[in-house]
Amino acid sequence: MENTDQNKKPMAAGAPAEIEQLKQELAREHDMYLRALADFDNYRKRVERERATATRGGKREVMRPLLEVVDGFDRALNHIDDAPSSISQGVRALYRQLLGVLEAQGVTPLQSVGETFNPEVHDAIGLVESGEVEPGAVAEELQRGYRWGDEVLRPARVRVAR
Amino acid sequence: MENTDQNKKPMAAGAPAEIEQLKQELAREHDMYLRALADFDNYRKRVERERATATRGGKREVMRPLLEVVDGFDRALNHIDDAPSSISQGVRALYRQLLGVLEAQGVTPLQSVGETFNPEVHDAIGLVESGEVEPGAVAEELQRGYRWGDEVLRPARVRVAR
Repeated sequence: MENTDQNKKPMAAGAPAEIEQLKQELAREHDMYLRALADFDNYRKRVERERATATRGGKREVMRPLLEVVDGFDRALNHIDDAPSSISQGVRALYRQLLGVLEAQGVTPLQSVGETFNPEVHDAIGLVESGEVEPGAVAEELQRGYRWGDEVLRPARVRVAR
Repeated sequence: MENTDQNKKPMAAGAPAEIEQLKQELAREHDMYLRALADFDNYRKRVERERATATRGGKREVMRPLLEVVDGFDRALNHIDDAPSSISQGVRALYRQLLGVLEAQGVTPLQSVGETFNPEVHDAIGLVESGEVEPGAVAEELQRGYRWGDEVLRPARVRVAR
Protein backbone atom coordinates (compact mmCIF):
# COMPACT_ATOMS: atom_id res chain seq x y z
CA MET A 1 0.00 0.00 0.00
CA GLU A 2 2.69 2.41 1.01
CA ASN A 3 4.62 1.61 -2.17
CA THR A 4 1.59 2.24 -4.33
CA ASP A 5 1.12 5.63 -2.75
CA GLN A 6 4.73 6.49 -3.44
CA ASN A 7 4.30 5.52 -7.08
CA LYS A 8 1.60 8.11 -7.48
CA LYS A 9 3.58 10.92 -5.92
CA PRO A 10 5.12 13.42 -8.31
CA MET A 11 8.86 13.08 -8.71
CA ALA A 12 10.66 14.09 -5.51
CA ALA A 13 14.20 14.23 -4.11
CA GLY A 14 13.56 10.75 -2.57
CA ALA A 15 13.46 9.04 -5.97
CA PRO A 16 17.19 8.37 -6.50
CA ALA A 17 17.35 6.88 -3.02
CA GLU A 18 14.39 4.67 -3.81
CA ILE A 19 15.96 3.57 -7.08
CA GLU A 20 19.17 2.78 -5.25
CA GLN A 21 17.29 0.81 -2.63
CA LEU A 22 15.28 -1.10 -5.22
CA LYS A 23 18.45 -1.98 -7.09
CA GLN A 24 19.98 -3.31 -3.92
CA GLU A 25 16.88 -5.35 -3.17
CA LEU A 26 16.87 -6.64 -6.71
CA ALA A 27 20.51 -7.68 -6.45
CA ARG A 28 19.86 -9.40 -3.12
CA GLU A 29 16.77 -11.14 -4.43
CA HIS A 30 18.64 -12.33 -7.51
CA ASP A 31 21.42 -13.60 -5.27
CA MET A 32 18.96 -15.57 -3.16
CA TYR A 33 17.47 -17.03 -6.31
CA LEU A 34 20.88 -18.10 -7.61
CA ARG A 35 21.77 -19.59 -4.25
CA ALA A 36 18.50 -21.54 -4.15
CA LEU A 37 19.26 -22.93 -7.62
CA ALA A 38 22.78 -23.89 -6.57
CA ASP A 39 21.52 -25.58 -3.39
CA PHE A 40 18.97 -27.45 -5.43
CA ASP A 41 21.60 -28.57 -7.91
CA ASN A 42 23.99 -29.79 -5.22
CA TYR A 43 21.20 -31.61 -3.49
CA ARG A 44 20.15 -33.25 -6.73
CA LYS A 45 23.67 -34.51 -7.40
CA ARG A 46 24.04 -35.85 -3.88
CA VAL A 47 20.70 -37.56 -4.12
CA GLU A 48 21.55 -39.35 -7.37
CA ARG A 49 24.56 -40.87 -5.63
CA GLU A 50 22.51 -41.75 -2.57
CA ARG A 51 19.80 -43.44 -4.58
CA ALA A 52 22.29 -45.93 -6.05
CA THR A 53 23.74 -46.35 -2.56
CA ALA A 54 20.29 -47.04 -1.13
CA THR A 55 19.51 -49.76 -3.68
CA ARG A 56 22.88 -51.32 -3.00
CA GLY A 57 22.36 -51.02 0.75
CA GLY A 58 19.07 -52.89 0.47
CA LYS A 59 20.73 -55.71 -1.46
CA ARG A 60 23.63 -55.87 0.98
CA GLU A 61 21.26 -56.17 3.91
CA VAL A 62 19.74 -59.31 2.40
CA MET A 63 22.89 -60.79 0.88
CA ARG A 64 25.18 -60.64 3.92
CA PRO A 65 23.05 -63.05 6.01
CA LEU A 66 22.59 -65.21 2.89
CA LEU A 67 26.31 -65.88 2.94
CA GLU A 68 25.79 -67.67 6.24
CA VAL A 69 23.27 -69.94 4.57
CA VAL A 70 25.92 -70.63 1.92
CA ASP A 71 28.39 -71.45 4.73
CA GLY A 72 25.84 -73.90 6.11
CA PHE A 73 25.58 -75.55 2.70
CA ASP A 74 29.37 -75.75 2.47
CA ARG A 75 29.48 -77.64 5.76
CA ALA A 76 26.51 -79.88 4.86
CA LEU A 77 27.99 -80.78 1.49
CA ASN A 78 31.09 -82.18 3.23
CA HIS A 79 29.13 -85.24 4.28
CA ILE A 80 26.27 -85.24 1.81
CA ASP A 81 27.59 -88.37 0.12
CA ASP A 82 26.20 -90.42 3.03
CA ALA A 83 22.75 -89.63 1.64
CA PRO A 84 20.98 -91.41 -1.26
CA SER A 85 22.11 -89.84 -4.53
CA SER A 86 18.63 -88.39 -5.23
CA ILE A 87 18.94 -86.43 -1.97
CA SER A 88 22.55 -85.37 -2.46
CA GLN A 89 21.76 -84.22 -6.00
CA GLY A 90 18.77 -82.30 -4.71
CA VAL A 91 20.83 -80.54 -2.05
CA ARG A 92 23.57 -79.70 -4.55
CA ALA A 93 20.93 -78.28 -6.89
CA LEU A 94 19.58 -76.06 -4.08
CA TYR A 95 23.14 -74.93 -3.34
CA ARG A 96 23.74 -73.98 -6.96
CA GLN A 97 20.38 -72.19 -7.06
CA LEU A 98 21.27 -70.18 -3.95
CA LEU A 99 24.71 -69.31 -5.34
CA GLY A 100 22.95 -68.34 -8.56
CA VAL A 101 20.91 -65.68 -6.72
CA LEU A 102 24.16 -64.15 -5.44
CA GLU A 103 25.97 -64.52 -8.76
CA ALA A 104 23.11 -62.75 -10.53
CA GLN A 105 23.98 -59.73 -8.35
CA GLY A 106 27.67 -60.02 -9.22
CA VAL A 107 28.77 -61.67 -5.97
CA THR A 108 31.76 -64.00 -6.43
CA PRO A 109 33.81 -66.05 -3.95
CA LEU A 110 37.30 -64.83 -3.11
CA GLN A 111 40.25 -67.10 -3.71
CA SER A 112 42.28 -66.99 -0.50
CA VAL A 113 44.54 -69.99 0.19
CA GLY A 114 47.99 -69.40 -1.30
CA GLU A 115 47.36 -65.67 -1.85
CA THR A 116 49.52 -63.08 -0.12
CA PHE A 117 47.72 -61.86 2.99
CA ASN A 118 45.78 -58.70 2.15
CA PRO A 119 43.93 -56.98 5.02
CA GLU A 120 41.38 -55.54 2.59
CA VAL A 121 39.98 -58.97 1.76
CA HIS A 122 41.36 -61.17 4.53
CA ASP A 123 40.43 -61.12 8.17
CA ALA A 124 43.41 -62.84 9.87
CA ILE A 125 42.50 -64.67 13.03
CA GLY A 126 45.90 -66.23 13.64
CA LEU A 127 49.22 -67.48 12.38
CA VAL A 128 50.04 -71.08 11.58
CA GLU A 129 53.03 -73.16 10.52
CA SER A 130 52.73 -74.18 6.90
CA GLY A 131 54.82 -76.38 4.67
CA GLU A 132 52.66 -75.54 1.66
CA VAL A 133 52.52 -71.78 1.30
CA GLU A 134 55.11 -69.02 1.64
CA PRO A 135 55.33 -67.16 4.94
CA GLY A 136 52.90 -64.23 4.82
CA ALA A 137 50.52 -66.09 2.50
CA VAL A 138 47.10 -67.41 3.51
CA ALA A 139 47.53 -70.99 4.76
CA GLU A 140 43.97 -71.81 5.83
CA GLU A 141 40.55 -70.42 5.04
CA LEU A 142 38.06 -70.78 7.90
CA GLN A 143 35.25 -68.88 6.25
CA ARG A 144 35.07 -68.01 2.58
CA GLY A 145 35.16 -64.37 1.56
CA TYR A 146 32.99 -62.79 -1.13
CA ARG A 147 33.52 -59.89 -3.46
CA TRP A 148 30.67 -57.77 -4.80
CA GLY A 149 31.86 -55.61 -7.65
CA ASP A 150 34.41 -53.20 -6.19
CA GLU A 151 33.28 -54.04 -2.68
CA VAL A 152 34.29 -56.83 -0.33
CA LEU A 153 30.88 -58.16 0.69
CA ARG A 154 32.54 -60.27 3.37
CA PRO A 155 36.25 -60.73 4.02
CA ALA A 156 37.59 -64.26 4.26
CA ARG A 157 38.55 -65.42 7.77
CA VAL A 158 41.99 -66.91 7.42
CA ARG A 159 45.11 -68.15 9.15
CA VAL A 160 48.36 -66.81 7.75
CA ALA A 161 51.58 -68.80 7.33
CA ARG A 162 54.29 -67.85 9.79
CA MET B 1 27.91 -0.03 -16.46
CA GLU B 2 24.92 1.62 -18.03
CA ASN B 3 23.01 1.28 -14.76
CA THR B 4 25.87 2.86 -12.83
CA ASP B 5 25.83 5.82 -15.18
CA GLN B 6 22.11 6.22 -14.69
CA ASN B 7 22.59 6.20 -10.92
CA LYS B 8 24.81 9.21 -11.18
CA LYS B 9 22.43 11.19 -13.37
CA PRO B 10 20.48 13.97 -11.69
CA MET B 11 16.81 13.20 -11.18
CA ALA B 12 14.90 13.24 -14.47
CA ALA B 13 11.41 12.57 -15.78
CA GLY B 14 12.52 8.95 -16.51
CA ALA B 15 12.82 8.15 -12.78
CA PRO B 16 9.23 7.04 -12.02
CA ALA B 17 9.39 4.72 -15.04
CA GLU B 18 12.66 3.31 -13.79
CA ILE B 19 11.22 2.79 -10.32
CA GLU B 20 8.24 1.05 -11.80
CA GLN B 21 10.47 -1.17 -13.90
CA LEU B 22 12.71 -2.03 -10.96
CA LYS B 23 9.71 -2.92 -8.86
CA GLN B 24 8.48 -5.24 -11.57
CA GLU B 25 11.90 -6.85 -11.86
CA LEU B 26 12.06 -7.22 -8.10
CA ALA B 27 8.65 -8.87 -8.02
CA ARG B 28 9.64 -11.21 -10.84
CA GLU B 29 12.94 -12.05 -9.22
CA HIS B 30 11.24 -12.73 -5.90
CA ASP B 31 8.76 -14.94 -7.70
CA MET B 32 11.55 -16.94 -9.31
CA TYR B 33 13.21 -17.32 -5.93
CA LEU B 34 9.98 -18.59 -4.34
CA ARG B 35 9.42 -20.95 -7.23
CA ALA B 36 12.98 -22.32 -6.90
CA LEU B 37 12.38 -22.93 -3.18
CA ALA B 38 9.09 -24.67 -3.88
CA ASP B 39 10.67 -26.84 -6.59
CA PHE B 40 13.47 -27.73 -4.22
CA ASP B 41 11.02 -28.62 -1.48
CA ASN B 42 8.88 -30.80 -3.75
CA TYR B 43 11.97 -32.52 -5.06
CA ARG B 44 13.23 -33.15 -1.53
CA LYS B 45 9.93 -34.74 -0.50
CA ARG B 46 9.83 -36.91 -3.60
CA VAL B 47 13.41 -37.97 -3.02
CA GLU B 48 12.77 -39.04 0.58
CA ARG B 49 10.07 -41.33 -0.71
CA GLU B 50 12.28 -42.59 -3.51
CA ARG B 51 15.18 -43.35 -1.21
CA ALA B 52 13.05 -45.70 0.87
CA THR B 53 11.74 -47.13 -2.40
CA ALA B 54 15.28 -47.68 -3.68
CA THR B 55 16.36 -49.58 -0.56
CA ARG B 56 13.23 -51.65 -0.80
CA GLY B 57 13.77 -52.21 -4.51
CA GLY B 58 17.27 -53.54 -3.84
CA LYS B 59 15.94 -55.98 -1.28
CA ARG B 60 13.10 -57.07 -3.55
CA GLU B 61 15.55 -57.78 -6.36
CA VAL B 62 17.40 -60.27 -4.16
CA MET B 63 14.43 -61.70 -2.28
CA ARG B 64 12.19 -62.55 -5.24
CA PRO B 65 14.61 -65.12 -6.72
CA LEU B 66 15.30 -66.40 -3.19
CA LEU B 67 11.66 -67.49 -3.02
CA GLU B 68 12.45 -69.95 -5.80
CA VAL B 69 15.20 -71.44 -3.68
CA VAL B 70 12.61 -71.77 -0.90
CA ASP B 71 10.28 -73.53 -3.40
CA GLY B 72 13.13 -75.92 -4.19
CA PHE B 73 13.51 -76.67 -0.49
CA ASP B 74 9.78 -77.25 -0.16
CA ARG B 75 9.96 -79.87 -2.91
CA ALA B 76 13.14 -81.46 -1.54
CA LEU B 77 11.72 -81.70 1.98
CA ASN B 78 8.84 -83.81 0.67
CA HIS B 79 11.16 -86.80 0.35
CA ILE B 80 13.98 -85.85 2.70
CA ASP B 81 13.00 -88.61 5.12
CA ASP B 82 14.62 -91.12 2.78
CA ALA B 83 17.95 -89.64 3.90
CA PRO B 84 19.88 -90.46 7.09
CA SER B 85 18.53 -88.29 9.90
CA SER B 86 21.81 -86.34 10.21
CA ILE B 87 21.34 -85.25 6.58
CA SER B 88 17.61 -84.53 6.84
CA GLN B 89 18.20 -82.50 10.00
CA GLY B 90 20.97 -80.59 8.24
CA VAL B 91 18.77 -79.78 5.26
CA ARG B 92 15.91 -78.68 7.52
CA ALA B 93 18.33 -76.45 9.42
CA LEU B 94 19.44 -74.83 6.15
CA TYR B 95 15.80 -74.34 5.20
CA ARG B 96 15.03 -72.62 8.50
CA GLN B 97 18.15 -70.48 8.12
CA LEU B 98 17.08 -69.39 4.64
CA LEU B 99 13.54 -68.62 5.82
CA GLY B 100 15.13 -66.70 8.70
CA VAL B 101 16.86 -64.34 6.24
CA LEU B 102 13.48 -63.56 4.67
CA GLU B 103 11.66 -63.32 8.01
CA ALA B 104 14.27 -60.86 9.26
CA GLN B 105 13.07 -58.58 6.45
CA GLY B 106 9.44 -59.09 7.41
CA VAL B 107 8.58 -61.60 4.66
CA THR B 108 5.89 -64.07 5.68
CA PRO B 109 4.12 -66.88 3.79
CA LEU B 110 0.53 -66.33 2.71
CA GLN B 111 -2.15 -68.71 3.85
CA SER B 112 -4.12 -69.63 0.71
CA VAL B 113 -6.00 -72.92 0.78
CA GLY B 114 -9.53 -72.41 2.10
CA GLU B 115 -9.34 -68.61 1.77
CA THR B 116 -11.75 -66.77 -0.54
CA PHE B 117 -10.04 -66.13 -3.86
CA ASN B 118 -8.49 -62.65 -3.80
CA PRO B 119 -6.81 -61.46 -7.01
CA GLU B 120 -4.49 -59.20 -5.00
CA VAL B 121 -2.73 -62.14 -3.41
CA HIS B 122 -3.78 -65.09 -5.57
CA ASP B 123 -2.78 -65.81 -9.12
CA ALA B 124 -5.51 -68.19 -10.34
CA ILE B 125 -4.32 -70.62 -12.97
CA GLY B 126 -7.50 -72.65 -13.17
CA LEU B 127 -10.69 -73.93 -11.64
CA VAL B 128 -11.10 -77.30 -10.00
CA GLU B 129 -13.84 -79.42 -8.44
CA SER B 130 -13.51 -79.51 -4.69
CA GLY B 131 -15.39 -81.33 -1.98
CA GLU B 132 -13.38 -79.57 0.72
CA VAL B 133 -13.69 -75.84 0.19
CA GLU B 134 -16.57 -73.57 -0.79
CA PRO B 135 -16.95 -72.56 -4.45
CA GLY B 136 -14.86 -69.42 -5.03
CA ALA B 137 -12.34 -70.40 -2.35
CA VAL B 138 -8.77 -71.51 -3.04
CA ALA B 139 -8.78 -75.31 -3.40
CA GLU B 140 -5.11 -75.95 -4.28
CA GLU B 141 -1.91 -74.03 -3.85
CA LEU B 142 0.67 -74.77 -6.56
CA GLN B 143 3.22 -72.21 -5.43
CA ARG B 144 3.22 -70.48 -2.07
CA GLY B 145 2.70 -66.74 -1.95
CA TYR B 146 4.60 -64.32 0.27
CA ARG B 147 3.68 -61.03 1.84
CA TRP B 148 6.26 -58.35 2.60
CA GLY B 149 4.77 -55.71 4.88
CA ASP B 150 1.98 -54.05 2.90
CA GLU B 151 3.27 -55.56 -0.31
CA VAL B 152 2.63 -58.93 -1.92
CA LEU B 153 6.19 -60.05 -2.63
CA ARG B 154 4.84 -62.92 -4.72
CA PRO B 155 1.22 -63.94 -5.20
CA ALA B 156 0.32 -67.56 -4.59
CA ARG B 157 -0.42 -69.63 -7.71
CA VAL B 158 -3.67 -71.36 -7.01
CA ARG B 159 -6.60 -73.34 -8.37
CA VAL B 160 -10.00 -72.09 -7.30
CA ALA B 161 -12.98 -74.28 -6.39
CA ARG B 162 -15.73 -74.26 -9.01
